[in-house]
Amino acid sequence: MEKKKKFILPENEIPRQWYNVAAEMINKPQPYINPGTKGPLKAEDFYGLFSEELSRQEVNETDTWIDIPEEVREQYKLYRSTPLVRAYGLEKALDTPAHIYFKNESVSPVGSHKLNTALPQAYYNKIEGVTNLTTETGAGQWGTALSFACKVFGLELAVYMVKISYEQKPYRRSMMQTWGAQVIPSPSMSTKSGRKILTENPQYQGSLGTAISEAIELATQTSNCKYALGSVLNHVSLHQTVIGLEAEKQMEMAEEYPDIVIGCFGGGSNFSGISFPFLRHNIKGDKKTRFIAAEPSSCPKLTRGKFRYDFGDQAGFTPLIPMYTLGSNFTPSNIHAGGLRYHGAGSLVSQLLKDGYIEGMAIDQIESFEAGVMFAQSEGIIPAPESNHAIAATIKEALKAREEGVAKTILFNLSGHGLVDMASYDKFLSGDLVNYTLTEETISKSRDTE
Amino acid sequence: MEKKKKFILPENEIPRQWYNVAAEMINKPQPYINPGTKGPLKAEDFYGLFSEELSRQEVNETDTWIDIPEEVREQYKLYRSTPLVRAYGLEKALDTPAHIYFKNESVSPVGSHKLNTALPQAYYNKIEGVTNLTTETGAGQWGTALSFACKVFGLELAVYMVKISYEQKPYRRSMMQTWGAQVIPSPSMSTKSGRKILTENPQYQGSLGTAISEAIELATQTSNCKYALGSVLNHVSLHQTVIGLEAEKQMEMAEEYPDIVIGCFGGGSNFSGISFPFLRHNIKGDKKTRFIAAEPSSCPKLTRGKFRYDFGDQAGFTPLIPMYTLGSNFTPSNIHAGGLRYHGAGSLVSQLLKDGYIEGMAIDQIESFEAGVMFAQSEGIIPAPESNHAIAATIKEALKAREEGVAKTILFNLSGHGLVDMASYDKFLSGDLVNYTLTEETISKSRDTE
Repeated sequence: MEKKKKFILPENEIPRQWYNVAAEMINKPQPYINPGTKGPLKAEDFYGLFSEELSRQEVNETDTWIDIPEEVREQYKLYRSTPLVRAYGLEKALDTPAHIYFKNESVSPVGSHKLNTALPQAYYNKIEGVTNLTTETGAGQWGTALSFACKVFGLELAVYMVKISYEQKPYRRSMMQTWGAQVIPSPSMSTKSGRKILTENPQYQGSLGTAISEAIELATQTSNCKYALGSVLNHVSLHQTVIGLEAEKQMEMAEEYPDIVIGCFGGGSNFSGISFPFLRHNIKGDKKTRFIAAEPSSCPKLTRGKFRYDFGDQAGFTPLIPMYTLGSNFTPSNIHAGGLRYHGAGSLVSQLLKDGYIEGMAIDQIESFEAGVMFAQSEGIIPAPESNHAIAATIKEALKAREEGVAKTILFNLSGHGLVDMASYDKFLSGDLVNYTLTEETISKSRDTE
Repeated sequence: MEKKKKFILPENEIPRQWYNVAAEMINKPQPYINPGTKGPLKAEDFYGLFSEELSRQEVNETDTWIDIPEEVREQYKLYRSTPLVRAYGLEKALDTPAHIYFKNESVSPVGSHKLNTALPQAYYNKIEGVTNLTTETGAGQWGTALSFACKVFGLELAVYMVKISYEQKPYRRSMMQTWGAQVIPSPSMSTKSGRKILTENPQYQGSLGTAISEAIELATQTSNCKYALGSVLNHVSLHQTVIGLEAEKQMEMAEEYPDIVIGCFGGGSNFSGISFPFLRHNIKGDKKTRFIAAEPSSCPKLTRGKFRYDFGDQAGFTPLIPMYTLGSNFTPSNIHAGGLRYHGAGSLVSQLLKDGYIEGMAIDQIESFEAGVMFAQSEGIIPAPESNHAIAATIKEALKAREEGVAKTILFNLSGHGLVDMASYDKFLSGDLVNYTLTEETISKSRDTE
């Protein structure tokens, strides 16, 4: 018998439904709150900003399974099912008895898992008569995914890209433009909030907070135009469960079940996507899998944050979200894993962390790149700086398994490749990367001030 | 019944042998010739430069099937089988009755088909006791593939990278370094030929010819060190037949057989790889498939070259090769498809072109990028500038099929993705790309001077 390296589901087994963990959670997440009225929010309260179906998904706590529209599933076939891969090379490099598997979401044409939610978001907006979407992007992963999804379903897209990224990451900008999106460096003169900032400070290099403000402003002031977000929210995590649902069937093909499931953690969507379908068996009491969310130690909302109501953005435009947070004014260090630079965790993950279903693990920047290079050299794929955090956590657990002499089965999500992030590897290889240490005092300033 | 988008072979059906077209060709290619003695070359004559097994494969005209070593096949499993994809999106965009399929070689961890030959080249050298390899790279596709292959089999690699690419394409340089290769901008002070050039002209930006000279010099002057080449040669085309052998089985899964097979053409290896396994049925007289090699019109060796003996490199270090050539002194225009900037065609393809089995088709630079953007918008994947030539040829044939109202089946090779070449898309989208027109006079100067 040949050793199998990859486990691939046939196309007709790509999931037909997403898994909605909120319907099965014993303690439901606390509701979003309107900061003005202090009242809880209902689906209708989101209609101004998001498509109606996405708004309903956002607050749905009753339906365990939600149908994937056939048109979306057709587009998933461009790259799904994604391979489940046994990392024999990495196991050998670590000399570990652990069985390491990874779900390879880097095979999507945009290079990451973000397309899993970009496609349904574009689709629902399209069928509800929306013609234009707006969004913001920092490093560019989300912007590229939504650009392609909008092209597929015939929507116009305007992406506000943080100005310093616009200038320093021209490749991701070109990708968005190749797929037909309009990319605007933020702050821009196209919105009131952008003009205000530029008038006061013409040299301002932009921030995600400003880009969000501009995208929301444009959406609310344009007819048939809505806004789209690539992480944090419940409907985004819902769409990402296609990752874990496939992985569950693929682990069956491998005749194993994970003892540990690992994902990197920014706003929570890729971690939720790989975890929730396995976590439901923990909720039911059938399994005792550990779920590890690997966050940068420079942005440690899970391991050092506080569970409370907080805004999702710096400017305070969003509803109040029940979350583990470092405070919405927390400014993360300038690490290369741009997708993990977010102050809080989505409401589902926050509740599950509070209830002991999942664990946070903090990873230093240099450790994350050491892990990424080891993976690249043993498995070929150069991972995204974000995914390197999941790999570093996997390596820790695999080495622990070696110490303990147990053949643990570990599954992690390779959320994306790093081919458009090689500048960060360059810095690592030339010894120019640093770790960022946060004192308790620094964190408490933003975290403990409501 | 669901429409199938992708056809994927199970791992145990990854080919166990490569197909050696030379054994079945009716007119064998003329032999390589020693420019000094004018005598034909035998395998032993290559032992100084290449591994013995690769040298034997280079001149093998008797064995139709050559075993793929099990260790190489294990590594192929990292990314093979690669998907055969039905391009429904492109068909719809073209409103063509043609059935368009592409073989997606861009899924390899290095982003192109080059790894198919890098792995066996590293392997054979390793088992023959070689410890170090040298090579050159222009745009960097080949250098990245060999870097990873050398890491897999535990060889040290020195890559001479054309200096202007070293400076302008830092991403590919970083990829090579991430996989552990030593990358030297060429010309360098590490070789006699490099020192000579730098002394005469300290500002020289390098050329592929100079980089080849440096790589060969280092290989011949270092113990246990050989040289490796990523295209043109017969053993390279042999290894690439894994592409077409898989595609043949996958077309059977799709219950179709190609009327037309298309590949882009630089030295010939990816075109040979997709074509030869189908072409054998033409040789036998069972099929009448057309084979189209898509070359840049600025480097038109197939459509405007001359069949004669010529050197493989500018400096005249190689044996004389029977080839369609523009002359080894021909300097191709500075197009973005760096991998297609080569003056000649390998000896197998040249003989097959001469005998009418294959056709050349010249594609302008702007047309190639128009095709690439159309493909990116309809199928998601942003193609390598080289692969855009194959797509442009496919589009021409698909539109012809529409005019004629026939449902032709077209198969092309997507040799690689363009994520590390976005700067060229940027130029195209901003209207800064040009076509290069070659007068008959310009070409004849190098082509007709032996």
